[in-house]
Amino acid sequence: MDTQALYQSLRLANEPNTKLVLLVLDGLGDLATPSSKFLTPLEAARTPNLDELARASSLGRMIPVAAGVTPGSGPGHLGLFGYDPLQYEVGRGVIEALGLGIDLRSGDVAARANFCTLDEKGIVLDRRAGRIPTEVNEGLCEKLRKINKIGRVEVIIRPGKSHRFVVVLRGKGIEGPLTDSDPHREGAPIKKVQALGKSTKAKAAAKIINEFYAKALPLIAREHPANGFLLRGIAHSPKIPSFKDRFSLNAAAIAVYPMYKGLAQLIGMKKLEGTNTTQEEFEIYLQEYDHFDYFFIHVKGTDLAGEDGNFDQKVSVIEEVDRTLPVLLNKKPTVLAITADHSTPVSMKSHSWHPQPVMIHGPVSGSDRLDRFSETNANRGSLGVFKSKHLIRLMMANARLFDKFGA
Amino acid sequence: MDTQALYQSLRLANEPNTKLVLLVLDGLGDLATPSSKFLTPLEAARTPNLDELARASSLGRMIPVAAGVTPGSGPGHLGLFGYDPLQYEVGRGVIEALGLGIDLRSGDVAARANFCTLDEKGIVLDRRAGRIPTEVNEGLCEKLRKINKIGRVEVIIRPGKSHRFVVVLRGKGIEGPLTDSDPHREGAPIKKVQALGKSTKAKAAAKIINEFYAKALPLIAREHPANGFLLRGIAHSPKIPSFKDRFSLNAAAIAVYPMYKGLAQLIGMKKLEGTNTTQEEFEIYLQEYDHFDYFFIHVKGTDLAGEDGNFDQKVSVIEEVDRTLPVLLNKKPTVLAITADHSTPVSMKSHSWHPQPVMIHGPVSGSDRLDRFSETNANRGSLGVFKSKHLIRLMMANARLFDKFGA
Repeated sequence: MDTQALYQSLRLANEPNTKLVLLVLDGLGDLATPSSKFLTPLEAARTPNLDELARASSLGRMIPVAAGVTPGSGPGHLGLFGYDPLQYEVGRGVIEALGLGIDLRSGDVAARANFCTLDEKGIVLDRRAGRIPTEVNEGLCEKLRKINKIGRVEVIIRPGKSHRFVVVLRGKGIEGPLTDSDPHREGAPIKKVQALGKSTKAKAAAKIINEFYAKALPLIAREHPANGFLLRGIAHSPKIPSFKDRFSLNAAAIAVYPMYKGLAQLIGMKKLEGTNTTQEEFEIYLQEYDHFDYFFIHVKGTDLAGEDGNFDQKVSVIEEVDRTLPVLLNKKPTVLAITADHSTPVSMKSHSWHPQPVMIHGPVSGSDRLDRFSETNANRGSLGVFKSKHLIRLMMANARLFDKFGA
Repeated sequence: MDTQALYQSLRLANEPNTKLVLLVLDGLGDLATPSSKFLTPLEAARTPNLDELARASSLGRMIPVAAGVTPGSGPGHLGLFGYDPLQYEVGRGVIEALGLGIDLRSGDVAARANFCTLDEKGIVLDRRAGRIPTEVNEGLCEKLRKINKIGRVEVIIRPGKSHRFVVVLRGKGIEGPLTDSDPHREGAPIKKVQALGKSTKAKAAAKIINEFYAKALPLIAREHPANGFLLRGIAHSPKIPSFKDRFSLNAAAIAVYPMYKGLAQLIGMKKLEGTNTTQEEFEIYLQEYDHFDYFFIHVKGTDLAGEDGNFDQKVSVIEEVDRTLPVLLNKKPTVLAITADHSTPVSMKSHSWHPQPVMIHGPVSGSDRLDRFSETNANRGSLGVFKSKHLIRLMMANARLFDKFGA
C-alpha cells in the first residue's frame, strides 16, 4: 500500500472542536556562530511563552526538501502543507504572480518580468533599466495593458516594485514551462521564447508570448530608460490536489504578505484578509475559530531580518511573536505546531538548507523534557530530523485523526 | 541495486557462536506528562541492569510504520522482524486466529467472528449476543463444528473469550480479502460476503463462506441469546518470505501469548512453548541457546499496563524484567536489542505512533555516554530516529554479519 492510500484508509472523522494550527515563523531556523556568542536568534531571544509550550511539546528538526537543498518559499510551504515539493513544482513566475496578489487559476501561465534598457538594435544595455521607480513601472504597465488579449488568451499585467512586474496568460490550450526571453547578460538581444519540452500546449504558449512581444515592445519603444522587458520563469499554475481532498480538513490561511496567502490558495485554503500585524493575525484566528479545522498563520519578519543579516531585528521579531502568543492561546487549538518553512541564517543573509526547528504541542504530544524552544533543544527532541512533508501527518496523529493500522 | 539485494550480497557466514537476541517489551514507549511529574514509566522505574547495559550501548528511537501511524501488533512486529509492514499486510482475521493459537498455514483464510442475537426475520438485535460467557461460546462452537468441510475446503472453528471466535478456511483455490458479513450496526440483517476486488480465488472463498452460513445458522437457530454470528476482517494468511531465507538466521520465538508466537511462525520462526513468565522465557533461551542464531523474546505486561492506564503496573513490569535480566545474561548474546513494537502510553490507554526507544548492545555497539535506558536518552542516541524495519540490519551489522560494500 502506498503511504497516501494508507493515511486515507486510517482517517477518522473530525471531532467537532478539533483545531490544528500551523504557526510559521518564516526563515526562523538559524546558525550559532562566534559573532553571536554561539547563540541563534531564537536562543538569544526572551521567549517565556514559547518556553512554556516547549516544556510540554515534542521537538525536532525538519528537512524542507532534501539533504542540502535550500528551498524557496514555494517548496518550503508546500512541504509544510503536506505535499512533496519535488512532486508538485511551483514555477517562479507563478510565485511572483502570487506575491503580487493575483488570484491565479489552475492552468494560468505566469512570467516574472523586468523592465530593461535596449539600444536601437534591440541589444540589452541594462537588464534592470537602472532600477526605475515603482511609479514609472506602474505607468509602463498601464501602457502595456492595451494588449489584454492575444487571440483567445487573456493577458494580465501587474506591476511590482522598482523594475519588476508580472505577465499572466489565461486561457485554454496553453501551459509551461517555457524558456526565458531574458538573455541573462547585457550585450545580447531579447531571446525568442520556446517550449521547454515537446508539449504542444507549451508551444502554443510560446507563440502567444512571442506575439505579445511583437505588439508590446512598440508601445514603450520611446520610453527612457525602460524601453523593453525581459521574461523569466514562465510556468503554469500547477494542478495540485486540494488540501481538503487530501487531508479532509477545512483550512484557512492567515498571512500579511500576498505570496503566502497565494501559496495556500493554490491548494484551496481560504484566504482570510485584512491583517497587517501578528496581533491581527492571531485575532482573526480567534474570530474565525469556529469556521475552520486548520489554520495556517504566517509571520514574515523573521525571514526579512535573516535576509538583512540583522540579528537584533530577528530576535526582536521572535520576541514580539512570543509576547503576542497569549492572544492566539485565548482559544487553544487541539494541536499547535510552531516552525519555519526553512532557515534564513543571519550570517548567510539568505535562505538555507539547515533543518528548521519544530515543536508540536497538544494533549498527547508528551514532553521531551526540554525547557526552551531552540535549535539546540530541537536536536534532542523525540521527533528527530524528518522531512517537512510529514509534519501534517504528525499534527493529525496528535489530533487523534487516524485509526490504528492493522490488528 | 535495491537494499534487499545489497544486504544479501554482503552477508557473511555466521560464526559458530553468533547469537542475536531481540527482547521486546510490548508497548514499552510512553509519554512524559505533568501527572507523572514528566517521567515516563521507563524513566520512573528502578532499572540497574538495563542502565548498566545502556552505558555500553547505542540508543535511538524507532518509527514502527510511518509518521503518525499507530500500528497494531501485526505491523509492529513485522517491522521488528525486518519486513516492511506496508508491503506485507496481515489481516485482522489472521491476527485473531494466531491469537487463539491456530497453526495457520500460508493461504488459510481466517475471519474474526462474534456470536450475535437475531430476531425471527434475521435482523441483528445485539451484535455481541449480550457478551455471552466463554463456556456458552464453547458449546456453540462445538455445534458449528458439525460443518467441518464445504466442498473440498476444510473449516476450522476455535472459540475465544466471551462472544468471540474464529473461523478458518483451509484448502486450495481460495484467498482474501472479503467484505464483512457484520453490518456493523444493529437493526440490519447479516450481509452476504463478497470478494474485495476481482480475484477469482476471493470470489470462491466468498461463495464458501456464504454456503457455510446457510448450513451453520440452522444449527444454532434455537439457541438464546446467541442464535447467529457475524464475520469481520476476512483475510488469508499472507505469503511472506521466510526469516531464514531473508536473513540466513535460524530463529526461535519465545512468548507467553499465542498471537506473538503466531506472528513469528508466519515467517517461519520456531515457536518455543511452555513459558508463562519472563523468567521462564529467559530460561528457555538458555536451554535452547545452542540451537538457534536468533531469539525473539516477547514480554506482554508493559502493553497490558499501558492499555489499562496503570502507570505503577507498567513500572512494575519493567522492574521485573530488569530484575530477571541477569538470567538471560547468563549466556550473553553477541548482540542484544531491547525495544518495543510500538508505544502504549499510559495516558492514552492505547497503542500510539510515538517512536519507541531502542537500545543495541554488543561488542561494537560503542557507547552513547548515556547512563540509563529511557525515552529522553534515546532521543540523544547515535541511532537517531529510524524505521523499525531497519533494526534487524543494525543487529546483524553489530554481529559482524556483513562484509564491506565496495572497495
